[in-house]
Amino acid sequence: MTDTAASAPLYNRVALIGMGLIGGSFSLAARRAGLVGHVAGHARTEATRARALELGLCDSVHASAAEAAADADLVLLCVPMRAMAPVAEEIAPALKPGATVSDVGSAKGAVFEAVAPHIPEGVHLIPGHPLAGTEHSGPDAGFAELFENRWVILTPNAETDPEALARLRAAWEGCGANVDEMDPAHHDLVLAVTSHVPHAIAYTMVGVADDMRRVTQSEVIKYSAAGFRDFTRIAASDPTMWRDVFLTNKDATLEILGRFTEELFALQRAIRIGDGDHLHAYFTRTRAIRRGIIEAGQDTAAPDFGRTPPKPGTPKA
Amino acid sequence: MTDTAASAPLYNRVALIGMGLIGGSFSLAARRAGLVGHVAGHARTEATRARALELGLCDSVHASAAEAAADADLVLLCVPMRAMAPVAEEIAPALKPGATVSDVGSAKGAVFEAVAPHIPEGVHLIPGHPLAGTEHSGPDAGFAELFENRWVILTPNAETDPEALARLRAAWEGCGANVDEMDPAHHDLVLAVTSHVPHAIAYTMVGVADDMRRVTQSEVIKYSAAGFRDFTRIAASDPTMWRDVFLTNKDATLEILGRFTEELFALQRAIRIGDGDHLHAYFTRTRAIRRGIIEAGQDTAAPDFGRTPPKPGTPKA
Repeated sequence: MTDTAASAPLYNRVALIGMGLIGGSFSLAARRAGLVGHVAGHARTEATRARALELGLCDSVHASAAEAAADADLVLLCVPMRAMAPVAEEIAPALKPGATVSDVGSAKGAVFEAVAPHIPEGVHLIPGHPLAGTEHSGPDAGFAELFENRWVILTPNAETDPEALARLRAAWEGCGANVDEMDPAHHDLVLAVTSHVPHAIAYTMVGVADDMRRVTQSEVIKYSAAGFRDFTRIAASDPTMWRDVFLTNKDATLEILGRFTEELFALQRAIRIGDGDHLHAYFTRTRAIRRGIIEAGQDTAAPDFGRTPPKPGTPKA
Repeated sequence: MTDTAASAPLYNRVALIGMGLIGGSFSLAARRAGLVGHVAGHARTEATRARALELGLCDSVHASAAEAAADADLVLLCVPMRAMAPVAEEIAPALKPGATVSDVGSAKGAVFEAVAPHIPEGVHLIPGHPLAGTEHSGPDAGFAELFENRWVILTPNAETDPEALARLRAAWEGCGANVDEMDPAHHDLVLAVTSHVPHAIAYTMVGVADDMRRVTQSEVIKYSAAGFRDFTRIAASDPTMWRDVFLTNKDATLEILGRFTEELFALQRAIRIGDGDHLHAYFTRTRAIRRGIIEAGQDTAAPDFGRTPPKPGTPKA
């Protein structure tokens, strides 16, 4: 981002409100790149605060979110979405004029509604959503490479200060991410398709397997490599985060779930009546999307399925 | 399996009917382990036959399945399931007394029904199903490590010759697989849960994304890392194979699909009425299954999501 060897940090003081997978990874990535000065961290529990300090996720920890946010140039809200409103209310009096408040929540319409009323005049609210994560959570789950080549979506509006927006964008880019800007409602619909409904479905399929009396859990686990394993990986994500995703992106999730069940019934009918042509055509169409994802660099073509990849020189399809 | 350094192969002559991902990988693994002598291969197209020979998947290729099967000690049917009956009929007159016929199809009740009527007296039919695969297909997709630490389910019955069964088991174990025996109907139900319905769901979700007018395909692809990517990997599998899976394991698939939609409606209702406790409890339960899969060695705990794993020394959850 700059040609000078020893450039000034983008933000002299950053407050991390929440230091789990995303907050911790942001801190590790931003500090490694020299983008931030002092990082003040807040977490609800003493155990997390101590662990975050030990892992080097922050320079100081604070039992009070307001204390962490005081004098910060960037306040990043990394808490479950239903905690956004009370946290925003708590930190509001401590916010410095000219500071930027952003977040990492998965539903952007709801975050704006929850946080905006509390933000004082002269403070920039720019909601954001890094599309990165693993099935692990907590401060130990963070790593500096989490955002490399991943997308971060920012949802500014017509009144957003261009300089504050450019600085926040530069911070995420400095963490290795690609940044997009989007209308909050459109973000919520896109994420319902690419993330929220896939998670709902994966949770449901894993729940079905768990309920089956004639298929013991041990069998489901033993034979999971046959496809089910990819669902369990998705369904192992943080329960609190996902509860809040579905409660805060309710409308788009229900709309896409409705389309999904409609489409599933059509497939079910084709199976029932033995319509092989329909099935074959349907399955052929979905391959193109997979190829697009590999070409876009969001996955590799290696036939791994979590398996040992072929040795170099082994022919691949 | 043996203490002698230079043991005789388990099968002097093997016929591979079909040389795609599974047939090709079996041949590479079995030949590397010295389990088989001459491998005679059949494929429908001249192009596949030439490529299989070039890749070293077999010693001889045959345009006629019967010619490949003649004099073979093991005939492995690696064709889509709806091709099993005509292939069995074609090779039947060429089968040698004492030979074993097996297959790699994903539904075992249907394969037995299709193939058994054609098998002559004195030939051992032992259906089998290796639970291994990638989203790639064709002769180039094969690799010798495909079956390492994967399960192969054999479905013998009360009349199966114990010696023939032991030999087939030893062949798969020699390819690195773990072998289980199971009743065909139970196999079909377990696979409906762990594989067939997850595939149906993944195909459907990818189809929904493809249909969305307001969410362009480019956005779906760009933001796929948020969960959707794991579905596209599943949904990129071979269309012909999967058409046949759903047509031949229809009953178990429809039963599990019914349970799935029932459960999905319950989740959808919890989202609609905002029942956060229900959602949280449900999502917490599914984590245990994921832990079981990692402990069973069917996946790793690395938080990869297809991502660069953390550097050694980086703390993990």
